[in-house]
Amino acid sequence: MRKEKLHVISTGRQKPEQLAEIVGSIHPYIDAIHIREKSKTAKEIFEMAKLLTDKRVPLSKIIINDRIDVAYALKVEGVQLAYHSLPVAIVKKQFASLRVGCSVHSIEEAQMAQEHGADYVIFGHVFPTQSKPGAVSRGLEQLAIVANAVSIPVVAIGGIKPTNVRGVIEAGAKGVAVLSGVLEAEDPLATVKEYNRKLLI
Amino acid sequence: MRKEKLHVISTGRQKPEQLAEIVGSIHPYIDAIHIREKSKTAKEIFEMAKLLTDKRVPLSKIIINDRIDVAYALKVEGVQLAYHSLPVAIVKKQFASLRVGCSVHSIEEAQMAQEHGADYVIFGHVFPTQSKPGAVSRGLEQLAIVANAVSIPVVAIGGIKPTNVRGVIEAGAKGVAVLSGVLEAEDPLATVKEYNRKLLI
Repeated sequence: MRKEKLHVISTGRQKPEQLAEIVGSIHPYIDAIHIREKSKTAKEIFEMAKLLTDKRVPLSKIIINDRIDVAYALKVEGVQLAYHSLPVAIVKKQFASLRVGCSVHSIEEAQMAQEHGADYVIFGHVFPTQSKPGAVSRGLEQLAIVANAVSIPVVAIGGIKPTNVRGVIEAGAKGVAVLSGVLEAEDPLATVKEYNRKLLI
Repeated sequence: MRKEKLHVISTGRQKPEQLAEIVGSIHPYIDAIHIREKSKTAKEIFEMAKLLTDKRVPLSKIIINDRIDVAYALKVEGVQLAYHSLPVAIVKKQFASLRVGCSVHSIEEAQMAQEHGADYVIFGHVFPTQSKPGAVSRGLEQLAIVANAVSIPVVAIGGIKPTNVRGVIEAGAKGVAVLSGVLEAEDPLATVKEYNRKLLI
């Protein structure tokens, strides 16, 4: 039985040990854990990733945000790039072993990312979310347009809950990305299993 | 005629175009320009480095602070690492083409950097400097002790002026690193030439 992907993204608010504890227990049920800690130094991100591997989280499930050097040095699966990161074409060329995802917010950005060699995009935010209060959400219609506009997988982010996963998948997303919905859930393990049931195809 | 090295380090205060203009004119008279822009993103650092190469600053003279990914992607000479950067041993192993400098503030840090494979260290600050108001400067005696304690080159930083370069070299430094002393000088070109005269050995 196949299912679409479940990406979990660190919130930037949890202690490294706390994150490692949670991801250590849920990793068999997720496809990727993104270390996205904008206020942390390279050394801190490096140490956070090592805490995850100490908890037997496989390197093939670890994605590091923006810091390609840390990702490359640790031989994790990939990097997630934003508009302020190194250009995706440069990263694909110079760090060919890394899987490269791009965070995009429009059709144009998604197409550009694909053209420059991105392996997938994360598009959002789809629904209103407390992570981006006040920002206008893109909605399922825009998600469907983006998913149609590119051939690489589109992962949806922003206010994704088990109750709205089906609609997101039906709109064409090949996966969902969740932050606090999993990592700050009362029972993260039960929560990822619930997401996974909705991600079955 | 040989001379010790002159490193110039960006101040973090100048506009990229302004820095590129100055370095474009002085690069034949310096040994390294460090892009040390802690508040800039990877993309901004990447673009700043490209502005320098547009001004014909050779890649062999460009050092990038902390962002090993940007340095490696652009094939510049090296990186300068601080305590918050990726560990030097990891960088030497995974990015073997890069020359690696470490910023150190004690004998122990200098010895550790050497042990882990650093190619050189920058030690300071030697004299009081407006970059670090209130911080206690190390002085020439400490510099001499550090220079004796390691076999890799020690570059001195902090309040280095043409008038005190000789003392710094006599204490065992193999070069000096200067920020505003060059980049905010009224005549940066005349200033680097003046430093170089004092660096002759």
